[in-house]
Amino acid sequence: MKGETLGEQESAAARLMRTAQHDLVEALTSYDGDGEFRHAEWDRDGLGGGTARVMTDGRVFERAGVNVSLIHGSEVPPTIAKAMPEAAGQPYTATGVSVVLHPRNPYAPSFHANFRYFGVSSELWWFGGGCDLTPSYGFDEDAVHFHRTLAAWCDRHDPSWYPAWKKECDEYFAIPHRGETRGIGGVFFDRLTGGFDRCYALVADGVRTLLPAYLPILDRRRDMPYGERERTWQLLRRGRYVEFNLVHDRGTLFGLQTRGNIEAILMSLPPLARWEFAHQPEPGTPEADLARFLRPHNWLAHA
Amino acid sequence: MKGETLGEQESAAARLMRTAQHDLVEALTSYDGDGEFRHAEWDRDGLGGGTARVMTDGRVFERAGVNVSLIHGSEVPPTIAKAMPEAAGQPYTATGVSVVLHPRNPYAPSFHANFRYFGVSSELWWFGGGCDLTPSYGFDEDAVHFHRTLAAWCDRHDPSWYPAWKKECDEYFAIPHRGETRGIGGVFFDRLTGGFDRCYALVADGVRTLLPAYLPILDRRRDMPYGERERTWQLLRRGRYVEFNLVHDRGTLFGLQTRGNIEAILMSLPPLARWEFAHQPEPGTPEADLARFLRPHNWLAHA
Repeated sequence: MKGETLGEQESAAARLMRTAQHDLVEALTSYDGDGEFRHAEWDRDGLGGGTARVMTDGRVFERAGVNVSLIHGSEVPPTIAKAMPEAAGQPYTATGVSVVLHPRNPYAPSFHANFRYFGVSSELWWFGGGCDLTPSYGFDEDAVHFHRTLAAWCDRHDPSWYPAWKKECDEYFAIPHRGETRGIGGVFFDRLTGGFDRCYALVADGVRTLLPAYLPILDRRRDMPYGERERTWQLLRRGRYVEFNLVHDRGTLFGLQTRGNIEAILMSLPPLARWEFAHQPEPGTPEADLARFLRPHNWLAHA
Repeated sequence: MKGETLGEQESAAARLMRTAQHDLVEALTSYDGDGEFRHAEWDRDGLGGGTARVMTDGRVFERAGVNVSLIHGSEVPPTIAKAMPEAAGQPYTATGVSVVLHPRNPYAPSFHANFRYFGVSSELWWFGGGCDLTPSYGFDEDAVHFHRTLAAWCDRHDPSWYPAWKKECDEYFAIPHRGETRGIGGVFFDRLTGGFDRCYALVADGVRTLLPAYLPILDRRRDMPYGERERTWQLLRRGRYVEFNLVHDRGTLFGLQTRGNIEAILMSLPPLARWEFAHQPEPGTPEADLARFLRPHNWLAHA
């Protein structure tokens, strides 16, 4: 079996993901100031495995998860082989890091990011990833800050990327049965290739961009006073988050179908979620205003 | 369009479903003693519609829903046409009633039932339906009572039905990614045909069997003392309920894909659900004992 000794690119990608996990866990622990990340290793029948780091009941974070995985497969999965016939039947290495942050304060948005590398050979490989934001209450300045920070990151590498990946993100995070998006989007890219060093630099820069994109928003929201009304609304919105992840998210469904590590896959779910029959926020309330944020919008051009 | 005047069988089936809703709402209101059923009509672009009746925040029921629908379609849906080529391209009538009860007390199991009729012509039609029970805490006597009551109902009509439909239920309500069933099962049948009067009698008798199968269990459990530990466990088990309904339930996914009435479809979700990372109940606890109930078991032969 492959994978005892990784190729140079695979090693670099795996190191990038693992370092990202380490650095994010350290930064988020320090930011929270109270909660600690538990540590759970899992492996998949000698094909590789991963490390899940999960904080529950922090001061700022109700749940925070940062997972890393490194899998050596003997044969490219069918869905990928179908899209890339030249990879069919080949062994591969896949490594990635994923981040899901559900803060306690209803005014603070949930954050999701992942980066991943898929390699068949030194010629056939790609990176994927991105990040997005899911608020329960919308704030224009937060959405503008988030998208500006992501656009600046992408623009440092290729000015055509942000507009294309922002669109991909809006399309991916749609909840068609609700006629809304999961949140205010962000950027998402897949099968990025064309020069390993260039792609690696984009992803490494992306890892460094996550906290500057998110923490200034959390700074503003994490200590806002709230009551039962805001908590109930947050839990209803988390119900939508669950609906997206279990009904539409390709990563989740692929993981469940292929019997991946169930806890690592479902780490993305919020700790608590609520459903109410035919709930509609009162017109004119901040809850009703959220609808404005749940459709694709050009936040860079926002006044 | 068809459906202005229903055929005799369709009328009888639609009346059966509507009467079932009325009687169940009345009985459950009286049983709860405090909560009331809200009433919401929906229609589907002139194809028909339905009535959702939902109680929230009752004394016994945290959520109780009883929906009825009557749809006249101009063309049999593709999944059915594929299984029954003789129905392809035909107009149809579909009517059904569905019941989902989530009691407040963690010791009291959730209950689900539905009955439905699908008719293309007086020769081409079938009934489907059944009911099942989802406890958070397992009690042998409850499981035995539930299955005995269902077996007695089926046996009054055909002694081969209970064993076959109990097996169908166990298979349908599996959560493969968790390696467990949603609950202790019950009975489930689909495409039952062969003499309208005989099938109608089975279903009408089934409607009358729902409360005798469930309420004696609820009588025993609804006032058992409990605390935060039991409530937390109940919410974690409701997380599994959500996983089944959103990832596996064919009815839910079909409804979401075909843009059915979203609130009526998702009425089945519990009001509140919880996910914890890698949660495992302590061996030897009542929580750990639930595992014994979440695999197929012959409850009729249970000592």
